[in-house]
Order: sequence, then structure tokens, then C-alpha cells
Amino acid sequence: MKTIDSSFLASHNYSLARHAHHDYEHLGEQLARRDIDIETVRQQVAAFGVAIPSWGVGTGGTRFARFPGQGEPRHVFDKLQDCGVIQQLARATPTVSLHIPWDKCSDWGELRQAAASAGLAFDAMNSNTFSDQPGQAHSYKYGSLSHTDAATRAQAVAHNLECIDIGQALGSKALTVWVGDGSNFPGQQHFRRAFDRYLESAQQIYAALPGDWRMMLEHKICEPAFYATVIQDWGSSFLAAQTLGPKAQCLVDLGHHAPNVNIELIVARLIAAGKLAGFHFNDSKYGDDDLDAGSVSPYRLFLVFNELVAAAHEGVPFDPAYMLDQSHNVTDPIESLMTSAVQVQRSYAQALLVDRAALDAAQEANDALTATHLLKQAFQTDVTPLLQRVRLDAGGAIDPVAAYRASGYRQRVAGERPAAVGGGGGIV
Amino acid sequence: MKTIDSSFLASHNYSLARHAHHDYEHLGEQLARRDIDIETVRQQVAAFGVAIPSWGVGTGGTRFARFPGQGEPRHVFDKLQDCGVIQQLARATPTVSLHIPWDKCSDWGELRQAAASAGLAFDAMNSNTFSDQPGQAHSYKYGSLSHTDAATRAQAVAHNLECIDIGQALGSKALTVWVGDGSNFPGQQHFRRAFDRYLESAQQIYAALPGDWRMMLEHKICEPAFYATVIQDWGSSFLAAQTLGPKAQCLVDLGHHAPNVNIELIVARLIAAGKLAGFHFNDSKYGDDDLDAGSVSPYRLFLVFNELVAAAHEGVPFDPAYMLDQSHNVTDPIESLMTSAVQVQRSYAQALLVDRAALDAAQEANDALTATHLLKQAFQTDVTPLLQRVRLDAGGAIDPVAAYRASGYRQRVAGERPAAVGGGGGIV
Amino acid sequence: MKTIDSSFLASHNYSLARHAHHDYEHLGEQLARRDIDIETVRQQVAAFGVAIPSWGVGTGGTRFARFPGQGEPRHVFDKLQDCGVIQQLARATPTVSLHIPWDKCSDWGELRQAAASAGLAFDAMNSNTFSDQPGQAHSYKYGSLSHTDAATRAQAVAHNLECIDIGQALGSKALTVWVGDGSNFPGQQHFRRAFDRYLESAQQIYAALPGDWRMMLEHKICEPAFYATVIQDWGSSFLAAQTLGPKAQCLVDLGHHAPNVNIELIVARLIAAGKLAGFHFNDSKYGDDDLDAGSVSPYRLFLVFNELVAAAHEGVPFDPAYMLDQSHNVTDPIESLMTSAVQVQRSYAQALLVDRAALDAAQEANDALTATHLLKQAFQTDVTPLLQRVRLDAGGAIDPVAAYRASGYRQRVAGERPAAVGGGGGIV
Amino acid sequence: MKTIDSSFLASHNYSLARHAHHDYEHLGEQLARRDIDIETVRQQVAAFGVAIPSWGVGTGGTRFARFPGQGEPRHVFDKLQDCGVIQQLARATPTVSLHIPWDKCSDWGELRQAAASAGLAFDAMNSNTFSDQPGQAHSYKYGSLSHTDAATRAQAVAHNLECIDIGQALGSKALTVWVGDGSNFPGQQHFRRAFDRYLESAQQIYAALPGDWRMMLEHKICEPAFYATVIQDWGSSFLAAQTLGPKAQCLVDLGHHAPNVNIELIVARLIAAGKLAGFHFNDSKYGDDDLDAGSVSPYRLFLVFNELVAAAHEGVPFDPAYMLDQSHNVTDPIESLMTSAVQVQRSYAQALLVDRAALDAAQEANDALTATHLLKQAFQTDVTPLLQRVRLDAGGAIDPVAAYRASGYRQRVAGERPAAVGGGGGIV
Repeated sequence: MKTIDSSFLASHNYSLARHAHHDYEHLGEQLARRDIDIETVRQQVAAFGVAIPSWGVGTGGTRFARFPGQGEPRHVFDKLQDCGVIQQLARATPTVSLHIPWDKCSDWGELRQAAASAGLAFDAMNSNTFSDQPGQAHSYKYGSLSHTDAATRAQAVAHNLECIDIGQALGSKALTVWVGDGSNFPGQQHFRRAFDRYLESAQQIYAALPGDWRMMLEHKICEPAFYATVIQDWGSSFLAAQTLGPKAQCLVDLGHHAPNVNIELIVARLIAAGKLAGFHFNDSKYGDDDLDAGSVSPYRLFLVFNELVAAAHEGVPFDPAYMLDQSHNVTDPIESLMTSAVQVQRSYAQALLVDRAALDAAQEANDALTATHLLKQAFQTDVTPLLQRVRLDAGGAIDPVAAYRASGYRQRVAGERPAAVGGGGGIV
Repeated sequence: MKTIDSSFLASHNYSLARHAHHDYEHLGEQLARRDIDIETVRQQVAAFGVAIPSWGVGTGGTRFARFPGQGEPRHVFDKLQDCGVIQQLARATPTVSLHIPWDKCSDWGELRQAAASAGLAFDAMNSNTFSDQPGQAHSYKYGSLSHTDAATRAQAVAHNLECIDIGQALGSKALTVWVGDGSNFPGQQHFRRAFDRYLESAQQIYAALPGDWRMMLEHKICEPAFYATVIQDWGSSFLAAQTLGPKAQCLVDLGHHAPNVNIELIVARLIAAGKLAGFHFNDSKYGDDDLDAGSVSPYRLFLVFNELVAAAHEGVPFDPAYMLDQSHNVTDPIESLMTSAVQVQRSYAQALLVDRAALDAAQEANDALTATHLLKQAFQTDVTPLLQRVRLDAGGAIDPVAAYRASGYRQRVAGERPAAVGGGGGIV
Repeated sequence: MKTIDSSFLASHNYSLARHAHHDYEHLGEQLARRDIDIETVRQQVAAFGVAIPSWGVGTGGTRFARFPGQGEPRHVFDKLQDCGVIQQLARATPTVSLHIPWDKCSDWGELRQAAASAGLAFDAMNSNTFSDQPGQAHSYKYGSLSHTDAATRAQAVAHNLECIDIGQALGSKALTVWVGDGSNFPGQQHFRRAFDRYLESAQQIYAALPGDWRMMLEHKICEPAFYATVIQDWGSSFLAAQTLGPKAQCLVDLGHHAPNVNIELIVARLIAAGKLAGFHFNDSKYGDDDLDAGSVSPYRLFLVFNELVAAAHEGVPFDPAYMLDQSHNVTDPIESLMTSAVQVQRSYAQALLVDRAALDAAQEANDALTATHLLKQAFQTDVTPLLQRVRLDAGGAIDPVAAYRASGYRQRVAGERPAAVGGGGGIV
Repeated sequence: MKTIDSSFLASHNYSLARHAHHDYEHLGEQLARRDIDIETVRQQVAAFGVAIPSWGVGTGGTRFARFPGQGEPRHVFDKLQDCGVIQQLARATPTVSLHIPWDKCSDWGELRQAAASAGLAFDAMNSNTFSDQPGQAHSYKYGSLSHTDAATRAQAVAHNLECIDIGQALGSKALTVWVGDGSNFPGQQHFRRAFDRYLESAQQIYAALPGDWRMMLEHKICEPAFYATVIQDWGSSFLAAQTLGPKAQCLVDLGHHAPNVNIELIVARLIAAGKLAGFHFNDSKYGDDDLDAGSVSPYRLFLVFNELVAAAHEGVPFDPAYMLDQSHNVTDPIESLMTSAVQVQRSYAQALLVDRAALDAAQEANDALTATHLLKQAFQTDVTPLLQRVRLDAGGAIDPVAAYRASGYRQRVAGERPAAVGGGGGIV
């Protein structure tokens, strides 16, 4: 299923290689002056990957409208094909995260094989109890895992168990649970009872987790519920994860917080508590905008990675899962996902450049100016040549978007994939 | 098209009348002690009306899902029927505001007659250039009135002119223009050029306004655009309205502001500048939540009316348009709209109770405690008996929701209106 | 130390009693129709009290300026005198909460006696490690309990132990710990290490708590630190309280949250987790504005009490501490504190009027409109006559502010207390 | 008044020059590939300057505490000396902005001479009607330019006129007017009347402006008033500036907006309306935090400069004033101001690197991904070598903070300047 011709790619890279090489050498020299070995950083960055959400390759939408793009994927195999192109060119997204029932298919073995042939594996499974499916016995209009009605809760639990089953067939090792449960009016929901019902349902899911799986709980301050949500913040997420047990952890979506909240601080707290599951990367200016990662606040993304790299540096045991979770309303999803993967990778690479010993010393001495300068120094370093080299080494494109556009891939699939109204996209 | 049986209504009211009468008398006595004549207030409240948006009688939705209700209206005639019931019972909503193309029909004369027979007239027309319609020549994916492409702008202008034409056929006197134009990425849009193009398009619409019409510009901080919008706040709305001319004014939707913004202060500024067009009433906790008016922050709604009543009291010339604009995701829309109309009416009635002379004196003396107490005194007054009486006098229901539920209206129309997936609702 | 003449007060009440009595009767009749016994509610409200912060009787200030009022208290005995007047007239504030070192005096026994003679007892003690005192060995410029320097931490711990000692001498049963610790720059502070140091210091304080004491941890999103704080939200507060042990609980100040955060939901979570310590009541529109309780968002205050009354109704074991914590910049602090105490009492009384059985049923049935209406019905009830009666029964004033103004108390103390620049006020 | 020894500085630079030179060459080569001539950019950056606020060289504070630093300036001459050091080393701050009465002195001619000898000129004058001065006839507790009392307003106007007089003596060409006027309670202030009184007072100040002066109106959403302010946002600022006349313009402080507000969009609107006065640069995470410019959101600062450079590129006539306005609570103010000046300069330099022609084309084509990439490409460019070179050329330090620390300046002045409690600092 490799879909960009390799000789085309080689020729594309050839034209850019000379300058890329030269810039890499200069960067290496600059880093050496700071006692950083660029090769070491390169290896760390090369080992880094972020998952693509299968729904991300479709055009997103808002409650007002969805404006489809050309050649949108029709089903999970088309989505895998698009993910394959992303991975082929950007070489930072070795896994795909599925959403059930959107990605249901008749033969999971066939799907697993298709993924493997595209060089992809499967990341966390995502269940969906925030919308009703045709033929569904009980509606989630008033909630799912926390619904007042036991039969509706049981249906939601069963759906999650099915997701685990599918995930096992695909080699996944985690279930991400995000619910839209909440209320739109003061008084609509009994806060404590709703939380208790959520816990009771979640315990049933937890009990069905395979031994090597994780359950990742995703909190969100609002939307689709606009007065209160059941898992509204990391505090409630932590309470739930703690109640459930060691395999339950808290997932941080960068757009799910109240305004002004310090996200990197939450990351630090969850690391310390041993409860950081991982991330849904995106960016936001107003709410859960699901903009491209780092497109509005690149320094914030860097500061999140600064916490992660610091914890790893200090030997804190943790293993966060990384996934993009964006809504591509005005761009080609493949271009956005490649760009975002590179942006995430960039933040990671920059965080690796922080002089940890000097930072520790400045922090101990309360030398705030030096401490913050050390972060800025790393952030201001243009690691583009490093990222280009990592892609090149792995067989990818020096400039993924340019290569993609030149390849004509989108036009090609547009011919094969008739325009679909609606589709699986638009919801993130 | 009167749809609740009048003898049923009479009997419903009969059972509640005695206590209502008694409470009204006590309220009158309390107000008399404050030198307020309850009859005068009653007449003012009786003259107050707020428009129903035609799309409000359908079940709303979010980008994640829409959970339809029973017996949802299929077309504008069904919507008018529902609006008729609302007006019949709550007697505070004498007009309906249409949305084109959602409310298109083949015979506007027939529609006008249907409205008249339901005791309804038509408020402002609403154009839609934030979603694409089947067969549309140019897409609004990248904007409408501010689009970079002249043909797309022309199409959007033409649509607004059509809305004016329809409005003239229906007796409307205003056009509300809200656009989803904006951008999702820094750099995507040239801010100044986009605003200029908006103005140029708006000027063409303005030029086509009949002499006794108003053009109401609606601003919004975000959504569907999540990095920047073209008319993002009252400042930009005012700039545009001032450029267009005296018939252009600024409409305030209570959910379209940045967090923490003082909305009643904006109302005061627009009154002073002669540019207050009117309101889209709803409530919000997080963003443009479109919750029921006053359901989360009833005091804020009161404070808005306090500005309006103060300006009227002082003889400031202005004539704001009032409309509900809510998304009913978890309630019966008819119940929500009646309740919200009464809540808006309540806020108006309470604002009429403020002792203006005493407030002026306290403000002059910088006696903040007394000033704020005077507002609180009015707000804490339970004007329920007054509102009941106003409804009763006008032939409505003492308890509109109870009467509605007892009437079986919803069940009746559910039989007549087959469940539709999607429909015109869900977007506000 | 009783400071308003009792015959004056009696005469003041006499003039208002007739209408108050009449209104109370009508309210009783209305409530009886809802199956609520007004006498039962009256007893519950009469038993309710909220503490006054000693610093609240001084005029507050901002970082820009402090504008002193007349007759400001010079020391803790003056403050007690003012608190005595508040309690004498409003009868809702039986306790005072001290702040050390601001309220230090040479004879705690004398102070305890002075309080008793004013009908006051002592609520929680408040330590201060967010500002430096003359002669202090180590500065809190870079933190206190979480400082990188062990000697500074030890000093901060010792100060808290001193507060416990003083509290024991005064009959207090709780220590409130709020620290200004945090950072102003990314990188300034090592998030996890700072939190660990905080915990280590807090454990030493916890270890010194008398058996019947509580330690109340107060979180705050920002200010005085403006990039990150050590106990930034209820999640971190909960983590800390859980680590410390059962006597540590989380205190909720209504102004210490990110914008849009649902505070009543946090209250519900803390109740469920057995970790709700109590409240610092105030109101806010923008940040930690420390405005008078319920002055901007009275419905929010009611919704908080709705959670408390619901939990009590259901027999959840908890015992929240109530304190006002406001900055009185433009009003007479005595007037503001009386008004706020009554506002808090009002919210409690209204929450007692909620029909819990009907609410439970509506919640179970997902009848959001009825559920929220039941809350609104209680909130819209004007309980003024009930509160007047509770005060009258207890020997207070029907209209506390009017009585206070008529009494000439402020003018009297202004003669005795020379104007002080600065003073202990202004910080909350 | 030159205060760092020039041979010391030369030697400091000598040790860094080789690498700086090499990096500059490589940057030049990279830019040349993008068709950018580094020399042209260097000249533009060299011509750029940002004013230092005189109060910024003192340690700031919050309402909770102020923690003084060593060697704080005692008076305006000390402040000028510190500003001279900043300009000597960083070469980006050729002007100083004074605050009256904090900077009052007995001989303005002497001050002007002292400034000239330090290579400094005077930027905008800042009046202060938000705090009371000893001996002042009327208090600003309840407002200044908008006060209900005419005598208080007259006093505030007279103070502004005095600031103009002083400014004329010093060669200033602008008056910045920020007032703390507003209210803490709903109802406290009559919104429209307060705004009218503000306008009337401002008109008197405007009338006294010399022909070549500007009046810069500064808006702020809150603080010190916490319910409403008189000039709360750019809309009110614009209304006022428009009423006053062409010499009145709107000043944008980056920390004075509601959460989530798009500041660069406001900048674009003010440019288009011909009303952009200039900036108070700082950064914020929560409110008016007055953190160091670009320390939290460097990309936001860049996006503001992107608007400025775009407007200049397009020949829009405007002339914004640039000033830092920060509160240095935990750093040496001299270090923070040098770092911030360089950060502002960096943002300007990066904005100069944007490929305007390509951006225009991408915007026209709605190619959002390319458009945003062009901004990111400029932002990711590490212009450090360019900034170093600009400083070196102008006689400054390659690494200003390192040079400053090595110079021992702070220790030296600490010996000369006894520690002052309070002082003129702390308020921004």
C-alpha cells in the first residue's frame, strides 16, 4: 500500500539534500558548543512517534457546517492508505488509533495485514458513546456510562468491551474512554450520583482489560455538555483513575481545559502521581478548537515536552502515549497531520536540547531569568535540519508537504473516491 | 391554527387562579410600600415581546451529535404551529424570526396568512452564508461576505438581498447578518483586507435595504472559525455599522463574547453610541453554549435589562429587537422557549422595579452598597404573580409548561410528524 | 463591648416590624402550599453562621492603591469590636478568623475574653508566609513551604506551628494554609520538586495538629505567582490533602479558579471524596476580585449551597467551615460584611426550599426542564422576611445596614481611631 | 553617566565574537537562499527601539507583598542611571517613559541633561490618577476623570496638564492616559454618565495638547476596578479616541484583555482605523500579570509584529510607540528589561523575515497551510546572531545579561543606594 513512488521521493530529496546537509552540519557545530551531541539527539528523535487518529484523515466540521475536501477516505482501508502516506513522508507516525464504530470492518485480520504492509501498527482504541448509531437500543442523549438508566449504561459498557476485543485482534494495548456525559442545566444531573454511576460502569470496563492494557480516561471541561461534565478536569479524572486501579490513567487533550489553565503543570502533577496516560495533541485559542498542534502556541507545546523530557531525564518511570487529535476544517488533512507530527517532533527535539544541569542549578538558586533563558535557548534553536535528517535517514521526505503536493496523491485518490456527504470525519 | 383547546386552558387556569390572585395582591401591596404601582408595571410587561427563532423549535445539536426529539417540525409551517402554541400559552412571543434557506417555502403569502391566524408576525430575517446548500455555485468553506473570491462574495450578497425580498413579503423590518467568516490559522487570512471585503459586501446589502429596515450586525469571538473571526467583537461590529450608515446597528448575542466580558457594559456603550440593534438571548457558561436564557446567570440577564430600562427611563431614543437564540439539546424546545420567554420577561419586570431616583442619588454619592442593594432588591422580588397575571389577562396559561404537558400537544404532533434525521434544527 | 445601643436597636426594629411580620406570614403561606414548614426552615437558618475574617474589617486595596476609610481598626481589639457590631446587628457571624502575624497581641487570654464578651468565638487560624515581616531571617520572595532553601521552609513551618499554638489558646480548631508559592517564568521552578517540598513541609505542620483540629488547604490558580502556583487547583489540593491524611481537607475560595470553571461541581467532587474543608466566600467577575459574596453571581452562590444542602439531606457526613473573604475597597467594611453574611444566609435558606424529592425524580427521569425549574423556584423565592425574622428572634436588626448607619457607629470610632496609612487590611 | 567600563565590555565581547561572527555568516547564507538580504534586515532592526518605563527599574509587587531587590533606585536620577546601563548593553532602548508624580524632580533641565549624557531621550509621559498623593485635595477612591464630583475631575485634568508641561520641558511628544476608574458593584456607577464625564475631562486634556503631541488612551478590562471599568476594551477606547480627535489614539497593553482575546486582530483593526497609538509590551497567562515580554507566549508577540510589519510593508501610514511595561517581582529589573527589549527586537526581526509576496499569494488562494507555514518559517528562524551583531555594531554587548552580571553593577549601586521600603516601584 506504499503510495508515493520512491524514485519520485528520491528525486525530491535530492534537490534539497545539499542545503539540508550543510545546515545540519552547522547545527551540529552550534550544539557542540553547548556540549550537546547532535547524533545522540538524532537517535532520540528518530525513536519518537505520535499516533494518527483514523478520523483525522477526514475533513472535520463544526456544528454549523462541514465543508468536505477532495478524495476523502470512504472507510477504514482508505484511512489506512492516507495514514500510510503520512508515515511514508514524515516518518513520525508509526501507529494509527481507531474509533469504533466509525472504523468497523468485516475482517480485522485483513485490516491488520493492510496496516502492516503500510508500515503501521495500531495504537489506542477509542470508543464512542457520545452519539447514537442506527439501530441502537438505548439513546445516549442523556448520557452513557453515567446514564440514570441501567440498561443504557450496560449498553455503553458492552460497546467498550467490544472495542477491547477489536483492539486485541489488532494488537492495540490501550482503550481511550471519553464520554460526552454531563448536563446543560443546573439541577439536571445529580453530580455525585452521576460520578458514582460513571465509576461503576468504568469498573466493569476496567475488569475486562487484558493484563497488558491501559485504560486512558479523557477529561473535558465542556462540550457537548455545556453546564457540567462528569469528568470535567484532571482532578476528577485522577479520582476516577485512582478508584479504578493501576491500569487506569489520565489522558491530557490540550484543548480540554478551562481558559488560562497551565497545562504543563497538570502534566507534571500527573507524572508525579504516576497517572499520566498520554496526550491528544492539538492547539486551541478559545476552547476545544482542535487546531493543528503548535499552530497557535508552539511554546506551550514545547513546555509540555519540557516536562516529559525532564521526567525521563530524572528516571521517573512513565510511558506516555502520544496521539494527534485535530479537526481539519480548512486544510488537506494529510498535510495538516504531517505538519503537526513534525511540530510535535520539533517540540520534543527542542526539549532534548535544554541544559538540564544548568536548569537544575538555576532553579535551586532561584535564578528565574537564567532558568527561563535556558528553556528559551532550546526553543529558539531551529532544529529543522535535524528533523529533515531524521526523515531522510528513515526513508521519508526532507520537505513532506512539498513532496506530497508534487506527488499528486490527493488528485489521484479524488478520482477513486467519490465525494461523500457526512462521512466519518468532523468529530474529534 | 390555535392548537391548545381553550376550554382545556380555562380549566387549567381555574385550578391555579385563586393562589395566583392572592399572591398578586400581596405583591401589589409590597410594591406599593416602595411607591411602585403594580398596574403600571403590569401594563409595561404586557407590552413586552421577544421573538422566537424558527429554528429554535427543532432540537439542537453539537458537532458531536444531534439527538432528535419527538414530533419535530418538518418545515416552516410546522414551526409556525409550534410557535403558535408557545405564544398561545406564554403570551410573550408575538413574532417569529425566519432563517433562509431553512424556512423557504413556495408561497410566502400563505405563510404570512398562517402566521396571522396563529397570532404571529415576522421579526428580523436571518441569512445563512455559513453553510453550503445543495447546488450552490460557490462554497463558503473559506468565507462568504469577506471571501477572497469576488464571485463568492457576490453570491453571498445576492442571498442577503433575497432574504430582504422575502422579508418584505412577510412584513419583516430587519435583516440580521451573521457570518462564519474567519480563519483557523495565524496567517490564513489578511485581517485588514478581509474586513475591507466584508465592508464592501455589506455596503451592497445595506444599499438594498428598504427605507424602514434595519441591518443588524452580529459579532462573535469564535466558532466556526477558531483563530480569528471577521466581526469578532462589538468594536469591530461598531466600526462596520458606523461605516455602513444609520440603518446598520450592532446585535448582541449573550454567548458571543470572550470569557469574563461585562456584557451589560457593552450594552450601555452601544446605547450611548446609538448603535444597539437588539439581542439574541441565551445563556452560557463556557462559550456560545446557547443554553436557555437566564438558566445559568439570571442576574446577568437582569443587569442587561437594567441598562435597557434605565435608558428608556432617561428618554434615550432606542428601539432594541429582542429574540431568543438557543439550542435545545436535552429539552422539549417548546418548553424551553416558553420558559425562556418568561425568564426574559421576568428580568424586564424586575428591572422596572428598580428605584431609579434612589439609584441615581446613590451613584452620585458613590454609595456603592446602597446602589447595588437597590438592584438586588428589585432582582430578589419574586414577580411570578405579576407574570402569571399578564399571561392570564392576555388569554394565556398561568403555568405554561404544566398546561402544555397536560395538553398532550407533543404526543399529538409526534403522530403527525415522522421522525426526521437531521432537519433544520441544531444550529443557532 | 456591645456597641450599638439596644434601645436604639429596639426602636429601629419597631418601625419595621409590622410589614416584616406581614410578609413573613405571607411567605409562610406560600411555602406551606409547597409543603414546606417555614418554622423548620427558620430554625435551620438560625443555626447557620459564617465566620468573619479579622482583616476584612479593614479597607482593602489593590497593587495600585489603597484608599483608607474612616475609623479603620488599629489592632485586633478594634477589629473584634467591629466584628461584634456585625454580629450584633446581622446575627449570622458568630466567629472570627484571625490572621497571624497581623492579629498578634500580647495577651491571648485577654483577647479570648474580649471576644466572648462580644459574643464571638474563634474560627480557623490563618498563617501568612506570603509576605515578609520586619526582622524575619529568611525571605519568602521565592516561596515558603516549597522554597528551595531548607531554612526558609523550616521558618515557614515554624510560623504555622505558632499559629496552631495561638489557635489553641483561643479555642480555634483549624488551620488554613494558603501559600503564595509559585513562579513567574517557565522554568523558574521545578514543578514536581516544588510540590514535593510543599508536601514535606505540610507534613510537619500536619504532624503538629491537635487531635481535634483540621488543616485546610487553599488552592489558587494564580496571584501572587503569575505563571504557575504550587497548589493551583482542587486536583493538586486533593493530592496534597490525601497525602497528608484525614485531618487535611480542601478549602474552596470562590475566586481562586480558572475562568468558566464550574465551582459547584468541584464542591460536589470534594464532598464525595470526603475532602471538603469549607469555603472562603466572595464573588468575582475576572479573577480573585474578592468582591462581596453573591454581588455579581448570586445564582452561583445558591448552586454551591444547593450541593451542600443536598449532601446534608442525603446524610453525607461532612462539616464545612464557612468564612467570608472579601476585599472592601469602596464600601464600609462593616456594611459589606453584614450584607454578605446575609447574602450567604439567603443562599442557604433558598437551598433549603428546594423540593428534593421532586428534584430526585426529575433527575432520574432526565427531565432537565423540571429539575432546573425546581432550583429556580427556590432561588426566586424572596426569603427576606424569613431572614429578618431570624435576626429579630436573635436580637439583631431587621435592616442591619440601616440600623448601622443610623447608629453613628462609624463616626464614633473615627473619632477614637486616628487614620492609619497602610494598616493590616487590603490583603485577602 | 556611562556606567559599565568600556574596556570591560570590549573584552567581554571579544571572547564571544568569533562564534557570533560565524553564526551570523551562516544565518546570512540561509536567508540569502530565501532571497532575504541580511544587511537590509540588520539596518531595520538597528533602527528599532522600545522605551523603558522609569518605574520598571524598581522591583514590582503584588497586592500581597513586595519583595525589594538590592540597590533599588531611590529617585528619577537613579532610574535614569539604570536605564543608561540597559541601553549601553542592549542598545534597543533609546528612550525612557516617565510617570508623574513618581518621577518628579526639582530641575527638569538637569534631568534632560542627565538623560542626554546617558544617551537617552524621553518617550511618552504617564499621568497617575489611580492613587492618592499626600496632601491631595480630592481622593480618587471613586474615580478621577470620570468622578461624579466636578472638583475631583478638575484636579485630575490639572494633573494631566502638568504632565504635558513637564513633558514639554523634557522633549516628550505624547501623553499616555490610563485611569483606574470603574466600579466594583453592579449599579455602583452609571455606565453612560461615567463615560460621558470621562470624555468631557479627556476633551479638556486634549485641548491642551501641543500641536505635535499625541494622546494615547489605554484600556483595561479590570483591576483596580473589578466589576466594570470606564475604558474596558478597544471598542470603548476607540469610541473615546474618535470623539476626541485625530491626536487621540488607542494604546494596546498586551495584558489588558479578556481571556482568549485575539490581540493581533485588535492591532489590525486599530491600524485600519488609523487609531493605533502603540504598545505596552509584557506577557500574561492569567490577567494583567505584567510578566516579561514574550516570556510565556513568544509566538503571540511575533504575530503582533507580523501585523505591524505587514502594515508598514503595505505603506499604511502609522507610527506606533513601543514601550515595555512589566512588573519585575523575582528578577533583577535591569536583566529583565534587557532581555525583554531583545525579545521584542527578536519578534520584530522575525516578522521582517516573512515572505510577504508568498503570504499574500497563499492568502488569496486560501492555502491556509502554506500561509501559516510562512509565518512559522520566519518565527523558527533563530535570529540571535543578527541581534548580537546589531548590538555589537552599536557598541553594546553580545550577551547583555552575562556582561551585566560580570560587571558587578548591581553590587556597586547596592552600596550606594540604601534599601528603601516601598519606593516608586511595584505598580505597572
